[in-house]
Amino acid sequence: MGTARVVFDRWEGRYAARMADVRSSAVRDLFGAATRSDVISLSGGMPEISRVPADVVARIAAAGVREDAREALQYGSSEGRPGLREVIVELMAEIGVRLKAEQIIVTAGAQQALDLLAKVFIDPGDIVITEGPTYLGALQAFSAYQPKVICIPMDAEGMRVDVLEEQLRELGPRGAKFIYTIPNFQNPAGVTLSAQRRRRLLELAREYDIPVIEDDPYGRLRFEGGHLKPLRALDDEVIYLGTFSKIFAPGLRLGWVTAPRPIMAKILLAKQAADLCGSAYAQVTAERYFTRTRWRKVLQDLVRTYSERRDAMVEALHEHLPPEVRFTRPEGGFFVWAELPAFIDTKSLLAEAVEHGVTYTPGDAFYPDGRGKNCMRLAFCYASPDDLREGIRRLAEVLEDRLELYRAFQMAGHFSEEVRSAS
Amino acid sequence: MGTARVVFDRWEGRYAARMADVRSSAVRDLFGAATRSDVISLSGGMPEISRVPADVVARIAAAGVREDAREALQYGSSEGRPGLREVIVELMAEIGVRLKAEQIIVTAGAQQALDLLAKVFIDPGDIVITEGPTYLGALQAFSAYQPKVICIPMDAEGMRVDVLEEQLRELGPRGAKFIYTIPNFQNPAGVTLSAQRRRRLLELAREYDIPVIEDDPYGRLRFEGGHLKPLRALDDEVIYLGTFSKIFAPGLRLGWVTAPRPIMAKILLAKQAADLCGSAYAQVTAERYFTRTRWRKVLQDLVRTYSERRDAMVEALHEHLPPEVRFTRPEGGFFVWAELPAFIDTKSLLAEAVEHGVTYTPGDAFYPDGRGKNCMRLAFCYASPDDLREGIRRLAEVLEDRLELYRAFQMAGHFSEEVRSAS
Repeated sequence: MGTARVVFDRWEGRYAARMADVRSSAVRDLFGAATRSDVISLSGGMPEISRVPADVVARIAAAGVREDAREALQYGSSEGRPGLREVIVELMAEIGVRLKAEQIIVTAGAQQALDLLAKVFIDPGDIVITEGPTYLGALQAFSAYQPKVICIPMDAEGMRVDVLEEQLRELGPRGAKFIYTIPNFQNPAGVTLSAQRRRRLLELAREYDIPVIEDDPYGRLRFEGGHLKPLRALDDEVIYLGTFSKIFAPGLRLGWVTAPRPIMAKILLAKQAADLCGSAYAQVTAERYFTRTRWRKVLQDLVRTYSERRDAMVEALHEHLPPEVRFTRPEGGFFVWAELPAFIDTKSLLAEAVEHGVTYTPGDAFYPDGRGKNCMRLAFCYASPDDLREGIRRLAEVLEDRLELYRAFQMAGHFSEEVRSAS
Repeated sequence: MGTARVVFDRWEGRYAARMADVRSSAVRDLFGAATRSDVISLSGGMPEISRVPADVVARIAAAGVREDAREALQYGSSEGRPGLREVIVELMAEIGVRLKAEQIIVTAGAQQALDLLAKVFIDPGDIVITEGPTYLGALQAFSAYQPKVICIPMDAEGMRVDVLEEQLRELGPRGAKFIYTIPNFQNPAGVTLSAQRRRRLLELAREYDIPVIEDDPYGRLRFEGGHLKPLRALDDEVIYLGTFSKIFAPGLRLGWVTAPRPIMAKILLAKQAADLCGSAYAQVTAERYFTRTRWRKVLQDLVRTYSERRDAMVEALHEHLPPEVRFTRPEGGFFVWAELPAFIDTKSLLAEAVEHGVTYTPGDAFYPDGRGKNCMRLAFCYASPDDLREGIRRLAEVLEDRLELYRAFQMAGHFSEEVRSAS
């Protein structure tokens, strides 16, 4: 199944047209390599769940089943457990978003919300707008519904809203089904949308009457600087996706979505069709985690941990990588984005990197159209500071050979330019 | 959201075309009424999870988190936890299906597998074949992909394969994307596909080269008679869906799918797009439940419980319902299907029934095209024998008024027929 062995497919030609567009996840495909003990993984965005106290979770898991057995073991409502939705109300209030519990649907991670929103909005050929690069899981979810994805470039302040404006002017009002953005510590770019641009993005969305989907998995993982208000706090028509994967544990597969009421009704229908309801069993545990444990201490510890790792990675990048490589310095989250000289193909380089004992995610996984070939996402969330330093050192080794070649090219190019200008 | 209040939808016209076809679940909509203590629910297919020992589940839940924390709390593989897939290998071997673990993908209940298979196979306008009536969750899952659903009628031996043959002859080879069947104790009809018809269905599927999806949630809940081999045991190209919801607990949302290798690769891609991976947290518990507890005793107890409830319901139906009502006598599973005189609309009758303190599921929920209006599904899985008897008594009361009218009509009809034949 996961192997490269070619299997004769007698069902070929009988799958839905959409399956031609559904991409495999490069990150998933690397999970095998990432679990080899001699390979340092800078690829997967796996949280450091060892900081979550297993004994505490074990205790609340047992108590939840014992005291709420009839609910934990039974089918639940499609919207999600009321108590957990109250937890989400409080979490959202802390970031400036006032909601009622009935404005929330609990999903199987934010990923399910992406799938449901794509199902609700996208007809084949519809245009959706994302940042470029963007979260590969979003591209996967969307691709099953066959949209045309337009990517807006970013700089250090996040999505280039001036480019967005040009694009929207070209498309006209309602010219796209939605704008998908990760404003905080973007995956994979690591950059954060500035306060000014948040306001401008919302103005443009209103002007062109296009829904905005705000995906905010990393918002609480800020290492420095002040928190910025989420888009949803500035405009109550924004569709907001949250997740417990980064503030608790991804193994429970719990996230949430809030959207204007008519859209919520559609999401709910799509959710019923997709799985009837989420796991009450996991929801009972999550509710207890956020109401009966010292989860804020754990989260503080996690933020400190990730912050140290970010420092370790960024320092090592400065120390080991040659000046031709540009990279971001995120103020939170999980990822650094590195851009290499244009002639380097990070996908073809990957096998060599694995041989050198390090993995990353090739940049083209984060574009719908093959761009990003000379880029890579480097995750600092999972490896220890020592491993991060060693991983970057190994990566630098792998790059060195290619860069030697690049420099030779450059000198040749410089030389021929001189020749041209002299002639 | 769930209310009937009409909300102005400024996004109307911007949803995907498929959303026009996605139906709400009548069962879900009734959950509110079903939880009122004065109403006896014969509607929802909720298992009697009080038979599952909560203290045992609490113990293994805690042990699973403590001993397998790194796996229980982390992202898992999209295929599912290896140990749980081994459990499924053994469960399948017991019903005559030999598999390897890599032939199995763990899903969020069998419902997710239905959604993924629909995603993989159905283009708008494609034909899919189901029994009629059929599982409403399947109709919901399929409807999001806009197929044309053709329903094959059933009798006491399950799907009428002679009608299927006529239909296939009309459609021609590969004329449908798949045939979806629930061979054991069908939901909602309660009938079981006979051994002879199983073989014939498979012959026809091979002859017309159409994949078969076998949905088997109730196979282990047989009260009497011998077990029949699943279709998958007779033909290894059959796509088989299983679930832990009825042999353990639906709150964990765990099921599985096995299919020929090329189809599995497509399902896996669709699953990654839908939720990245299933809940490792729930999978750790389920694995321990089937390897470290006396789950067979619990299942025996459940089968005995459901069998007694089937008896209570069927006896009460014989005792209270007038002879104009026909109903099935299932040898297992959760449901009885009742057919009333054609002029009775069970949906319009439902409000009255709720007032009388009983609910059922109106028959048209189980057809894609408005048929089944004079039918109802009666679930015996959830209420106690006493409540089942009282529920049927209340139902009979509600029906009595309508049937009086019917008898008057019939006599009038009989009279006018006599007049006609005399003239």
